[in-house]
Amino acid sequence: MPSRAKAKGPDTRIATLGPARIESPLTYCHFVPDDMMIPIRVSPEDLDEGETENDILFEPAGPRANIYFDSSKVKAAIVTCGGLCPGINDVIRAIVMEAHHNYNMAATLGIRFGLQGFIPKYGHEIMELTPQSVSNIHEFGGTMLGSSRGPQQPEDIVDALERSNIGVLFVIGGDGTLKAARKIHEEVAKRGARISVIGVPKTIDNDINLVTQSFGFDTAVEKATEAIRCAHTEALGAMNGIGIVKLMGRESGFIAAQATLALKEVNYVLVPEDNFQLHGVHGLLPSLEERLKARKHAVIVVAEGAGQHLLEQSGHTDASGNLVLGDISSLLTSEITGYLKERGMQHTIKYIDPSYIIRSVPANSNDRVYCGFLGQFAVHAAMAGKTGMVVSKVYGRYVHLPLELVTRKRKKLDMTSDYWRAVLESTGQYAISPMVSKGSPFCTI
Amino acid sequence: MPSRAKAKGPDTRIATLGPARIESPLTYCHFVPDDMMIPIRVSPEDLDEGETENDILFEPAGPRANIYFDSSKVKAAIVTCGGLCPGINDVIRAIVMEAHHNYNMAATLGIRFGLQGFIPKYGHEIMELTPQSVSNIHEFGGTMLGSSRGPQQPEDIVDALERSNIGVLFVIGGDGTLKAARKIHEEVAKRGARISVIGVPKTIDNDINLVTQSFGFDTAVEKATEAIRCAHTEALGAMNGIGIVKLMGRESGFIAAQATLALKEVNYVLVPEDNFQLHGVHGLLPSLEERLKARKHAVIVVAEGAGQHLLEQSGHTDASGNLVLGDISSLLTSEITGYLKERGMQHTIKYIDPSYIIRSVPANSNDRVYCGFLGQFAVHAAMAGKTGMVVSKVYGRYVHLPLELVTRKRKKLDMTSDYWRAVLESTGQYAISPMVSKGSPFCTI
Amino acid sequence: MPSRAKAKGPDTRIATLGPARIESPLTYCHFVPDDMMIPIRVSPEDLDEGETENDILFEPAGPRANIYFDSSKVKAAIVTCGGLCPGINDVIRAIVMEAHHNYNMAATLGIRFGLQGFIPKYGHEIMELTPQSVSNIHEFGGTMLGSSRGPQQPEDIVDALERSNIGVLFVIGGDGTLKAARKIHEEVAKRGARISVIGVPKTIDNDINLVTQSFGFDTAVEKATEAIRCAHTEALGAMNGIGIVKLMGRESGFIAAQATLALKEVNYVLVPEDNFQLHGVHGLLPSLEERLKARKHAVIVVAEGAGQHLLEQSGHTDASGNLVLGDISSLLTSEITGYLKERGMQHTIKYIDPSYIIRSVPANSNDRVYCGFLGQFAVHAAMAGKTGMVVSKVYGRYVHLPLELVTRKRKKLDMTSDYWRAVLESTGQYAISPMVSKGSPFCTI
Amino acid sequence: MPSRAKAKGPDTRIATLGPARIESPLTYCHFVPDDMMIPIRVSPEDLDEGETENDILFEPAGPRANIYFDSSKVKAAIVTCGGLCPGINDVIRAIVMEAHHNYNMAATLGIRFGLQGFIPKYGHEIMELTPQSVSNIHEFGGTMLGSSRGPQQPEDIVDALERSNIGVLFVIGGDGTLKAARKIHEEVAKRGARISVIGVPKTIDNDINLVTQSFGFDTAVEKATEAIRCAHTEALGAMNGIGIVKLMGRESGFIAAQATLALKEVNYVLVPEDNFQLHGVHGLLPSLEERLKARKHAVIVVAEGAGQHLLEQSGHTDASGNLVLGDISSLLTSEITGYLKERGMQHTIKYIDPSYIIRSVPANSNDRVYCGFLGQFAVHAAMAGKTGMVVSKVYGRYVHLPLELVTRKRKKLDMTSDYWRAVLESTGQYAISPMVSKGSPFCTI
Repeated sequence: MPSRAKAKGPDTRIATLGPARIESPLTYCHFVPDDMMIPIRVSPEDLDEGETENDILFEPAGPRANIYFDSSKVKAAIVTCGGLCPGINDVIRAIVMEAHHNYNMAATLGIRFGLQGFIPKYGHEIMELTPQSVSNIHEFGGTMLGSSRGPQQPEDIVDALERSNIGVLFVIGGDGTLKAARKIHEEVAKRGARISVIGVPKTIDNDINLVTQSFGFDTAVEKATEAIRCAHTEALGAMNGIGIVKLMGRESGFIAAQATLALKEVNYVLVPEDNFQLHGVHGLLPSLEERLKARKHAVIVVAEGAGQHLLEQSGHTDASGNLVLGDISSLLTSEITGYLKERGMQHTIKYIDPSYIIRSVPANSNDRVYCGFLGQFAVHAAMAGKTGMVVSKVYGRYVHLPLELVTRKRKKLDMTSDYWRAVLESTGQYAISPMVSKGSPFCTI
Repeated sequence: MPSRAKAKGPDTRIATLGPARIESPLTYCHFVPDDMMIPIRVSPEDLDEGETENDILFEPAGPRANIYFDSSKVKAAIVTCGGLCPGINDVIRAIVMEAHHNYNMAATLGIRFGLQGFIPKYGHEIMELTPQSVSNIHEFGGTMLGSSRGPQQPEDIVDALERSNIGVLFVIGGDGTLKAARKIHEEVAKRGARISVIGVPKTIDNDINLVTQSFGFDTAVEKATEAIRCAHTEALGAMNGIGIVKLMGRESGFIAAQATLALKEVNYVLVPEDNFQLHGVHGLLPSLEERLKARKHAVIVVAEGAGQHLLEQSGHTDASGNLVLGDISSLLTSEITGYLKERGMQHTIKYIDPSYIIRSVPANSNDRVYCGFLGQFAVHAAMAGKTGMVVSKVYGRYVHLPLELVTRKRKKLDMTSDYWRAVLESTGQYAISPMVSKGSPFCTI
Repeated sequence: MPSRAKAKGPDTRIATLGPARIESPLTYCHFVPDDMMIPIRVSPEDLDEGETENDILFEPAGPRANIYFDSSKVKAAIVTCGGLCPGINDVIRAIVMEAHHNYNMAATLGIRFGLQGFIPKYGHEIMELTPQSVSNIHEFGGTMLGSSRGPQQPEDIVDALERSNIGVLFVIGGDGTLKAARKIHEEVAKRGARISVIGVPKTIDNDINLVTQSFGFDTAVEKATEAIRCAHTEALGAMNGIGIVKLMGRESGFIAAQATLALKEVNYVLVPEDNFQLHGVHGLLPSLEERLKARKHAVIVVAEGAGQHLLEQSGHTDASGNLVLGDISSLLTSEITGYLKERGMQHTIKYIDPSYIIRSVPANSNDRVYCGFLGQFAVHAAMAGKTGMVVSKVYGRYVHLPLELVTRKRKKLDMTSDYWRAVLESTGQYAISPMVSKGSPFCTI
Repeated sequence: MPSRAKAKGPDTRIATLGPARIESPLTYCHFVPDDMMIPIRVSPEDLDEGETENDILFEPAGPRANIYFDSSKVKAAIVTCGGLCPGINDVIRAIVMEAHHNYNMAATLGIRFGLQGFIPKYGHEIMELTPQSVSNIHEFGGTMLGSSRGPQQPEDIVDALERSNIGVLFVIGGDGTLKAARKIHEEVAKRGARISVIGVPKTIDNDINLVTQSFGFDTAVEKATEAIRCAHTEALGAMNGIGIVKLMGRESGFIAAQATLALKEVNYVLVPEDNFQLHGVHGLLPSLEERLKARKHAVIVVAEGAGQHLLEQSGHTDASGNLVLGDISSLLTSEITGYLKERGMQHTIKYIDPSYIIRSVPANSNDRVYCGFLGQFAVHAAMAGKTGMVVSKVYGRYVHLPLELVTRKRKKLDMTSDYWRAVLESTGQYAISPMVSKGSPFCTI
């Protein structure tokens, strides 16, 4: 198959701290061979221009027969950053349990309130995490460690790691955090320090490149459908009732799209990837008017980052370095009200923002299983001396991904995919979002 | 006990359309004697100045041996008004089932979108309600009839009732709606029409006078605790995290108080009945500062009508005739932010408004049983020719209450009761809400 | 008050350890006057032959201005007995919090695994209960202390109490346990010991005399309706599908009846109070045959103690001293199968026994509020030197009830009440359970 | 592609009714090219001896530009067979919606009560399915069509299909049903009839060969964890409490294993694939004794088909042709009781069988999305003239699979996989299930 030989994919090699020469303390299990790579066909969306998606080789996650660290002597630290997401506690728990029960690791430390927890001036104490202290945390949402937004100096963090003699840093966080992890990894490398930096991608928006589905996403969608069901009930409860639900999704509309597929009551889903218009022949407002005349109610799901092209941008950024978004839900509400009033149409808008209710629930079973594997595989990778990487599930396989690769761009909905076609089919919003087709017969999720 | 003889209670007599001379079609059951009255000791809060709460006599709800209407010839109509509340569909279902299966009533009609549905210019069609068409509606929240806010002319409504030859009007609604029902009842009486007007009190705020607990309240509290749990999780997830949950309660803080008792994570509950201060020795802000210093997080539950004394009033009213409330949650957020910034305290506020999520869920089992009884008793009362009344449960007994009595004032939390004491005990907010005691050893709910 | 003097009600006086001469440490609150009694009209079912239900006077629960114990010096113990029930942990938590935060009690001890925990030979260690150790237990079902069935010698228990210098014993349990508590109380009295014995009635069957609704019952009904919904779905899923759900209820069918009212899909509810027949003109089997011919599916809810008149009794008793019940569900299944096979009717039976799933869930909000009050009032009563009593809610008021009164008989469904009539109306099972009416217009629940 | 030619995989070609020459009525969308095949690397478990798992080519699901049927003239029928499973109604709904809205199909018919519905002697009427009649069915569990077990003569079914002029038969069912579908397909082929037979694999056991995860499985696991949580609570609630939960899984322990990973409280998971022993050095009973001595409680999850090697086999088969299984839960209960009694260990066993509660709940969001795609893709395949196949998701891609391939064997847990290793890690049951390793670094689920 000569054509495949020419195919250029992204660089999927994983950095290591050095040769793994210590025998693994795991006795019961088979091990992943050191040089094993498995081919996975990914979505074109995950790739850069000019890369091919065929048979990209990834390093499988899993325990290695020979490891780098003397696990009984090494200390690990866990830090959780950014907004809440279902399953963080499950990942923490799995790391602690794996480190303690299987690798008999010297200690697992919990850094409080995100990267701040490394910086002495904030005065946060470091927690000792034990099987006992984490045994029930999966029954609660949030993060037992606390979180914060925003970066800290990589130098300060590596100072702190060296000061506390920490050999492994587990970083649970999203795009910004993984970029910070990459800088920490580079600072470690610059100093020649023996510290493994392992990320676990956390993003309720599901927008991490190459990560098929991030943990907590499934739970978030489940919870989001509750809000949509309520919006539908409210819409039905009034003459020309309009239920609007704002869901997470700064740059990618995955939750909005998936929740729309899960609960078929949505009439319009507005996502950042779709530059919809309010007015004109493809405008939301005239389409909504038609819908109300025909059915007397409507449900709109809008991702928080949708419609930014209709809003003036402040140009400000928040603590995480994210651009402060224009307020699409206020715009929608006022534009709809104005438009329908002008036409003398009695109507009622009920607006629901379930954001924090979705973010803070405990993970469902599916995410719990997922988080359990992520935590275990993160420990396996760290013990083997891997670094500068994240563990993730890519099309059903647990693999190692370089931090560089997952942070080089955000994952977005493919507007030409079968998946998006199914979303449009479910809402019937062809009037405002005509299907654009290039032919990608992949389900993004 | 001679003092009791002098005690003057409220007028609890129920109006009737005329003597009940038709034998009930119900064959299987015992009947409530026509002149039966039962004594119930109510809370002083339910009464007016000068009235005594001892042994007030109420007419029990239930089937009568002799009824007023020839049930197989009479048509009934159901109308639902105001905001959504869990259980409306259950009440509709129970009325339809009782009317059809037990009284073999000629027809039960559904008026669409509240009192508007009576007014031809709105063009709403009347629905025929059958056991088949209502059989599954209890699995869905909201009202299958739709609702609207605001009154219509009583004359127009009685015109519509007479035009459609409707003998019984079931009105499901809150304070404003029951006042409207009272005017309809008066217009009916003025015309000497043979139309029974029976209310079923619906208020998610639980603020109907004498009604111990309105349907849907229990479900609302259950759902509200979910939001509080999320606020707590969010508060724990950040340094000096502050979770604020706004709950329903325009003039009465029942949901806020009961949800606080149900989930012990609330540190401050702010209700309309309590004129708390932001600043000063009893101020919320200094108390919150102390709380954060001690525990690093806090949860605040605020009823939507709380703190109006701190806000400028617009003086405007909404479609239901309710005063447009000042925005206490914005005030809280900005005041807290300002106060803590001034003191250099890093903090994060997460604000949750679960209002429509709470209002639109299906009723829980407890409310379903309750709604089932309310619907049945409403039909029994109507068939017996009772009018100008509501059915309700008062301290565990189903009774008839005159419309006049339930609308003469709003029920409020008794700030001197054991109940409120328990709320304060749960939050520990004595610094801002010192207990005022006059000694009412009653549980309001 | 001459008329009341003639009325003979049950003895509702509460025993005390002695005069209350110590000032309460509670400073913020009003107190219940020492001699206050409130009249409550109870159901005839709660009374013995010859007693009248009018205006029975009960001692209200609540804090007293003068208390018996020096609360900072007294130690309390909590023991939980019998089967699980939602809310036990909430009661434990409320007792510990009230004892600690408001009375500053010296210690609250947790006895492990029921009354066994007092007996040295079992080797169970006593736990120290602190606000910290109980802070999250309400999020979990069951009892953090463990439980066991069966009595222990009262002498041994009082020995243990004296040995550990325990001044207050909180006993959370059902009929058998409260009888044991009464014996402990009598042994304490015989010895002249200064130990208060306070019960909190726990029975998922809701069969404690005079206790309007026991804690956990509401949650149990909610959970039971889930099983009924599943049985209905299974019944609909097969030709002549029959879903049978066995619910708790050894001697009283409260859960079965209430769940039937909450979910209207039940066609037959079989309770211990109703001596239904399988065969003959009022027989379940011919009625079921008709039902299947008409509707092709049926749902049967059966309380575990129903139909004992159709079964041979073993005469054995279990560890709790309860008679081992005959297996009604096996009888039903085999009789239905035989009967329908004989008639050549294809059918499918799906049998669901959700017992332990119902018993072990956490309490819902309603029960949480209730359990919170029960725990607080139990502590108030104990501190005031009350003994030989339980705290309970009777028709909306929290009162003290003598142990003697609540254990003198079991509460049962009144087959002549409006409540049972509503149950029959919901199922339509008049063919097998003709309504017997004597005229009790009370809602039992 | 010479290297692939040598690799011998299973035959994945899909049969067709004939050339597709009619233009698809779908205008908005891109189409799957007719000859497209995509490579997927499957688990060795999915294959037969001698087959290779590398790069097996599958036909992608999706709409084709040219279709076989004149969709506006063809009638389709849907039949649901076997036990209930969450999501059946969602699949029905998706088929009806796709057929109606996108292909404008002449009619979609619902066959009542499984394959029986085709046989006149049973007298079941065929239902007409419309968007209106299926619009709400996804909110309810079960199947709106009813189901039955057991085969019918393929000739009779094809007679019925021809009689009713049905061009497409959608069969929703498990292994036995798909074998029946294969026979129907063969009978159709023998007659040269123009009837497409399309299966949608339904198995709550998740045991269909090559189907990565069957619909409803995720919901079933979620619901199963509730029962496990209850068993854990019950186990904690008694001295040496043992909670036993029986879960579905006749030949494969997927639900048991996945639920164990989702809720970490399970101490022993017993699956059909693992020939565990009760007695002896690797016996469950001595291990349980140790566990109880150490922790005083234990949770056992047992798949219904586990431990058959310990039971006498009746050799009988049920209506579906499945072997009647020996009763492992009774064996466990009696063996445990006997063993512990012999050793004088007080203990309590609580046994939970949540089977019908799990099978009959509505699908969760994840399964809803999945079912929606399965229904749509089934219609696309049928319209394109594909037949003798099922639609399924295989490692993240929706594909067509020949009926022959999915029915040639049952999927089982790979006892040498990372997945099973993670299960053992979670329970710690190495004493009874020593890890066997051959090195399959795949996650089965």
